[in-house]
Amino acid sequence: MERTNTVTLFETIATLLEKKRYPTLRDILTTMNPVDIAAAFEEIGSEKCALLFRLLPKELAADTFVEMDEEMQEALIHGFSDTELKEVIDELYVDDAVDIIEEMPANVVKRILRQADPETRKEINEILKYPEDSAGSIMTTECVILRPKMTVEEAIKRIRRTGIDKETIYTCYVADDFSTLIGIVTIKTLLLSDEDEILENIMETNVISVNTLDDQEEVAQMFNKYNFLALPVVDKENRIVGIVTFDDAIDVMEEEATEDIQKMAAITPTADKPYDKVGVFETYLSRIPWLLILMISATFTGIIITSFEDALAGSLVLSSFIPMLMDTGGNSGSQASVTIIRALSLGEIEFKDIIMVIFKECRVSLLCGVTLAAANFAKIMLFDRLVLGNTALSVTVALVVCLTMIVTVFIAKLVGCTLPMFAKKIGFDPAVMASPFITTIVDAISLFVYFQIATALLRI
Amino acid sequence: MERTNTVTLFETIATLLEKKRYPTLRDILTTMNPVDIAAAFEEIGSEKCALLFRLLPKELAADTFVEMDEEMQEALIHGFSDTELKEVIDELYVDDAVDIIEEMPANVVKRILRQADPETRKEINEILKYPEDSAGSIMTTECVILRPKMTVEEAIKRIRRTGIDKETIYTCYVADDFSTLIGIVTIKTLLLSDEDEILENIMETNVISVNTLDDQEEVAQMFNKYNFLALPVVDKENRIVGIVTFDDAIDVMEEEATEDIQKMAAITPTADKPYDKVGVFETYLSRIPWLLILMISATFTGIIITSFEDALAGSLVLSSFIPMLMDTGGNSGSQASVTIIRALSLGEIEFKDIIMVIFKECRVSLLCGVTLAAANFAKIMLFDRLVLGNTALSVTVALVVCLTMIVTVFIAKLVGCTLPMFAKKIGFDPAVMASPFITTIVDAISLFVYFQIATALLRI
Repeated sequence: MERTNTVTLFETIATLLEKKRYPTLRDILTTMNPVDIAAAFEEIGSEKCALLFRLLPKELAADTFVEMDEEMQEALIHGFSDTELKEVIDELYVDDAVDIIEEMPANVVKRILRQADPETRKEINEILKYPEDSAGSIMTTECVILRPKMTVEEAIKRIRRTGIDKETIYTCYVADDFSTLIGIVTIKTLLLSDEDEILENIMETNVISVNTLDDQEEVAQMFNKYNFLALPVVDKENRIVGIVTFDDAIDVMEEEATEDIQKMAAITPTADKPYDKVGVFETYLSRIPWLLILMISATFTGIIITSFEDALAGSLVLSSFIPMLMDTGGNSGSQASVTIIRALSLGEIEFKDIIMVIFKECRVSLLCGVTLAAANFAKIMLFDRLVLGNTALSVTVALVVCLTMIVTVFIAKLVGCTLPMFAKKIGFDPAVMASPFITTIVDAISLFVYFQIATALLRI
Repeated sequence: MERTNTVTLFETIATLLEKKRYPTLRDILTTMNPVDIAAAFEEIGSEKCALLFRLLPKELAADTFVEMDEEMQEALIHGFSDTELKEVIDELYVDDAVDIIEEMPANVVKRILRQADPETRKEINEILKYPEDSAGSIMTTECVILRPKMTVEEAIKRIRRTGIDKETIYTCYVADDFSTLIGIVTIKTLLLSDEDEILENIMETNVISVNTLDDQEEVAQMFNKYNFLALPVVDKENRIVGIVTFDDAIDVMEEEATEDIQKMAAITPTADKPYDKVGVFETYLSRIPWLLILMISATFTGIIITSFEDALAGSLVLSSFIPMLMDTGGNSGSQASVTIIRALSLGEIEFKDIIMVIFKECRVSLLCGVTLAAANFAKIMLFDRLVLGNTALSVTVALVVCLTMIVTVFIAKLVGCTLPMFAKKIGFDPAVMASPFITTIVDAISLFVYFQIATALLRI
């Protein structure tokens, strides 16, 4: 299959390039997918690629350009003559042009906008106005708009005439004279209907649309829920201004999942850049604030230990269980929090389900706590005492540890399931309420419980 | 917009149902999206829904049936007469029928297969043969297959005739007499080409396809990479046997992201069920094994503490820093591991990049370690000593803590970035090498380092 061959193909291309076999190179490149050509270009390096890029037919060149990373795009633009730049820009879909512009430095942006034709420039500027992460910012304005009184035949004719420049022709939008979106009709419906049928009669009038200012994550969730190919974007007056296509929604989904995962691990998300493109200092900056905050919070745990120093001095064996209790508490809490965060972000649960969630997590935590305590009790009694002969471990100490375990797991799951829900309720991103945060809170609580139970049972 | 209204619509539907206003109900339901109807049915409950379901036109009924959860589907099937069941089955796409069958108990499966017509039954059995999570298991056999010698006009005629039963008509596949896949052609190309053009001349011959046995995650990644609407699935002889459509790929993507997130939090994935559908005991079972394993591993940390008991008794203040050091080590390690796991799963890095990864993480970890140590030193000297007047905290103790911090963060990041890569290399899922696992390892190492440095510097 193609994709397994792309790696070795890079070498062939590089060799042919050195031998200046341009016609052969052109033949090879034109049979390749733009994604694979872009990958090959990145392997080969930007200096040599300017030459290769000029071998590509216009449309393929534009499609390949979109798939490159921003450094490569910038390098190529610097090498372009104004005419070459104009040719690429003209072939781009407006939403792709916007994506590229957003990553370029100001002087390159100016050059691109100068070369774009006035109509395109206007559309680009239109989209650039929408806030980042909004539906408006990821939409394209190039969609097929039809009129309600058209016949199927007229509609197909119109699509044939104008379709070449549209990002998708598979879902067409029916709007009235004021651009108000009144229906959608798919190519499938058009092809399977009678030629004389009027669109009004066959269009789907129950149109699900998004607003220009809706959050992109919400938009992606609607694709996931409804399996659309494209979603119309309307303004406040319900006039159609563009569409979001499924490929953009897939990108948003991956991006949002990565962001959630990063936040769960106490990392400030790094604007959708692949690992190898993020610099050392940038990586440092995305990680250090959280490490500092969590380190400072963890000192509270230290304060608790200090205030129970006497108890600890009286029964030194107690301190050897601290890491195990802290870790188990942290793990239990993050199991609950991560489950809840994911369920919230997939829309499986909402704040109103909080009672159901708490009730369920409480039952799960009791089951887990008792199992862990029992395993632990057995381990202390059979392994630590009998096998290792550690006589400092009395039955009472074992009881203290096991009781603390049950209480800790219970509290950890409770904190783990409620915090993300409250965070979402008051408008924070629940993903930051994951493992590291929960661990810090649960650590302090579990140590406090541990020493309380210890002082009570061991009378120290 | 529609989606904001769906919640209140549930109540309207329930009220109308009580009042037995069936024609009105039918009118409302037919304007709704199948996804929203299914959601409404779930709110209303399965007993009352059998009635509502019968109000739906055939095609909408089948589309709605697909969107329901399995309990609702099973309840409805139990209430169906054989004729009703047959009507629903006939309307389903084969891949949806397979999805449903996979969730049903054996007696229901038998009933469904008995009602399916022989051709469909054969296709269903065909797909059921493929291993779970393979491309074959998520594909559908209903795609448009064209011949290379057809004209555009003939192709469109064929699509018009057979398209109604196909899951997608937007990408058509060109195969020779032996079913070998030789090209693809989109409806867009067909509509924008001359009617007399021969498919051979306009089809895309550089076909990217997947094999029936390829892993579904790989398939989903190809959708993400190439932005396809559908991908052809071929057998070993390159004969086309079906297609995977983008909506199935989106489902797989979400499912795999959830699985990764669950594994990262030490949870055994729960087969793509939403939170509220997983029972308490099932939740317990998915969480307890990891908690037990991690608890047992954490006792090693206890052993380290015990073996340094004398050092600890000599300088009790040391124990108050244990939680902070452990937490910071754990957090640093999981930042690295989670970043690497995500980059691996998105295909951004591979095992061959391990040197680059280690070099980068080392630099990041030194920056982080030194910053954290400096902040910590300042805090101990200025806050703990001056403000709180804790004189037990000598400069040497502060130095011990800060040195340990630098070493711990360094080791944590190193372990965090290498373990997932080695796991992937030897064929394990890197996602299990996330926070909980890394934390346990880093805890033990950091404590060991702490006591070594303490004994050396404090001479205890």
